[in-house]
Amino acid sequence: MPSRAEEAAHNLALVREKRPLVHNITNYVVMQYTANALLALGASPVMAHAVEEMEEMASLANALVLNIGTLSEPWIEGMRVAGGVASRRGIPIVLDPVGAGATRLRTNTAVRLLDECRVAVLRGNASEVLAVARGAGGTRGVDAAHRVEDAVEAAREFARRRAVVVAITGAVDHVTDGDNLLRVRNGHAAMGSITGSGCTATAVIAAFCAVNANALEATGHALAFYGIAGEHAARRSVLPGTFGTALIDMLHAVTPDRVADEARIEA
Amino acid sequence: MPSRAEEAAHNLALVREKRPLVHNITNYVVMQYTANALLALGASPVMAHAVEEMEEMASLANALVLNIGTLSEPWIEGMRVAGGVASRRGIPIVLDPVGAGATRLRTNTAVRLLDECRVAVLRGNASEVLAVARGAGGTRGVDAAHRVEDAVEAAREFARRRAVVVAITGAVDHVTDGDNLLRVRNGHAAMGSITGSGCTATAVIAAFCAVNANALEATGHALAFYGIAGEHAARRSVLPGTFGTALIDMLHAVTPDRVADEARIEA
Amino acid sequence: MPSRAEEAAHNLALVREKRPLVHNITNYVVMQYTANALLALGASPVMAHAVEEMEEMASLANALVLNIGTLSEPWIEGMRVAGGVASRRGIPIVLDPVGAGATRLRTNTAVRLLDECRVAVLRGNASEVLAVARGAGGTRGVDAAHRVEDAVEAAREFARRRAVVVAITGAVDHVTDGDNLLRVRNGHAAMGSITGSGCTATAVIAAFCAVNANALEATGHALAFYGIAGEHAARRSVLPGTFGTALIDMLHAVTPDRVADEARIEA
Repeated sequence: MPSRAEEAAHNLALVREKRPLVHNITNYVVMQYTANALLALGASPVMAHAVEEMEEMASLANALVLNIGTLSEPWIEGMRVAGGVASRRGIPIVLDPVGAGATRLRTNTAVRLLDECRVAVLRGNASEVLAVARGAGGTRGVDAAHRVEDAVEAAREFARRRAVVVAITGAVDHVTDGDNLLRVRNGHAAMGSITGSGCTATAVIAAFCAVNANALEATGHALAFYGIAGEHAARRSVLPGTFGTALIDMLHAVTPDRVADEARIEA
Repeated sequence: MPSRAEEAAHNLALVREKRPLVHNITNYVVMQYTANALLALGASPVMAHAVEEMEEMASLANALVLNIGTLSEPWIEGMRVAGGVASRRGIPIVLDPVGAGATRLRTNTAVRLLDECRVAVLRGNASEVLAVARGAGGTRGVDAAHRVEDAVEAAREFARRRAVVVAITGAVDHVTDGDNLLRVRNGHAAMGSITGSGCTATAVIAAFCAVNANALEATGHALAFYGIAGEHAARRSVLPGTFGTALIDMLHAVTPDRVADEARIEA
Repeated sequence: MPSRAEEAAHNLALVREKRPLVHNITNYVVMQYTANALLALGASPVMAHAVEEMEEMASLANALVLNIGTLSEPWIEGMRVAGGVASRRGIPIVLDPVGAGATRLRTNTAVRLLDECRVAVLRGNASEVLAVARGAGGTRGVDAAHRVEDAVEAAREFARRRAVVVAITGAVDHVTDGDNLLRVRNGHAAMGSITGSGCTATAVIAAFCAVNANALEATGHALAFYGIAGEHAARRSVLPGTFGTALIDMLHAVTPDRVADEARIEA
């Protein structure tokens, strides 16, 4: 029986073989970086948000990212339509509730998308996940709060109740479907020094889910791979400009063999 | 009589001397990269889309880029107004039909802009150009399909019928006005590994057309120059993060003399 | 009594200690770069523009950036609401009138925001500041014109009349509250070769104003620090791609001690 690390390696190899189309309705800040990250790791990104083309575009995709980082009414409508199409077609949806808890618009939109769509994975930092789980919260901006244990418990309960995989990323990543809990111990502190490192994690998860129907495992694999890329990038530099460039390089250069050797995923 | 390579060198020198203002109505993903590319090569970029300022902004410009990569209704209106102004004033318009064929909104918008505006150059990959030429199509996302020969024939016919220069970029770039066909053999595969490399080609074409009224030749020159920059960037690294940075460097560093030596444009 | 350079060093140390939340309503082109710059120097960025969340988001922030670079009606509404909240709460507002003078929409929006909000600092190039001061103008695109002396006089008069600090950035930066004039002689010409270098200056000013109630001095400190980072980045490379990456690195790496040694701020 393959180890979790070997399964993660296989999941990466599948992404590179199948080049899944990942449809992103995401925030303005990270669009370019996310697109480059997806291309670098071997997936095929498309960014589109207009309600007029959502039915068609969402139908073409192998995974859908909904990211609420720079929300406005027309984008919410685009997310709802795309999310509906993906739900009906069984296309995995990964939701990133950026800044949930900071404003009611963000918290309510995240909750609404979870209510209306069949979200496969919810990924956020501890504050965001707590805010979504509670339907309200007190995050400050889009930074991580340090109530990881509280958040993991809330995530477990929420995952079980809503039949969604919840990933809380941080120094250690926690992934749960309510019954199982994976801890991923890859990554580097420098990843927190660039904007959109969480959003990029979300996009990487979507690429892995596009080729692996087990969302719990695919999420663990994706976070291990992303963390390994971050570790290698940090060997080039931990200064944030150079690190950000190196992380894109490493998303391309990290091989399945390296993932098999270096992934640290614990059940 | 100067060679095509020497003419390309001269066209670059003119861009650097005149610093044309290139007005871009383009997609969110590539805005920053496109602006940096235009600055690097010696042009002056401006990004603006609001219908309220289109008349004035389009009047100031020396070239106009219309790029439909992340389309929505207000942006289409901005494109139509700016395209109308540019058409009346003889400002060259370069249209990039990103993702045409993937959704009707994209195909129809590209066709509508071609109908309403005097587009000087249409630049896309083979799938996009085929989709526009047929007024429908079957591209998958925004990737290139590999039906280059079909696309070149369709481009020739479309160019003749609509009096527009059509450029199909790929491993070899094809540029046609219907009667003539240029093949540009510069470039590097790494250019396909970063998001917006096609959109950047479009912006470079606009800068070259701004100072050269022969759109067929200006497009060939631009693609040769851009390809040479890509070749030099790939000598630094073919990893996509570092390559993307190096490409901006090389758009600045490649001199007209180097273009005269290295441009590979065939009639 | 500490020197101006020592005060600038202290201001930077305060930013890094307090990590102020800087709320940006800014243009699409520079969002990612601005967010990375703020993170790199030690502040906490958030980008949000929807009118529905402006009251809450603006209330959380320690400073507000209003940047009109890619304006449209919904964004103007977001700016007005956020600006109103910040004005009532005494949160410093820094206004960047990108392209004022190029179109009436831009000039009028800048003037309207100055009329309606308690703007702490107006930062632009000479053309933009002239256009705002005159309520009209003739800038070409978003480039700097070279009428620095005219602009400085107009800035002094405008600053006095409107009780706002005005910063004109260029080869030498000029900062005035109407009575006092600071000249900042840090910086490097390569900063003009990347898009959004002015917008980034604006964001850095906001971070420094968030922890220093003296907007005149905070602006001088911010521009000295930013200029020093640019000088160090230029030692790595003056090619624009590499320089842009290095500038983010140096915003992180430049220490208060270095600022105390190298800041060149003259009254």
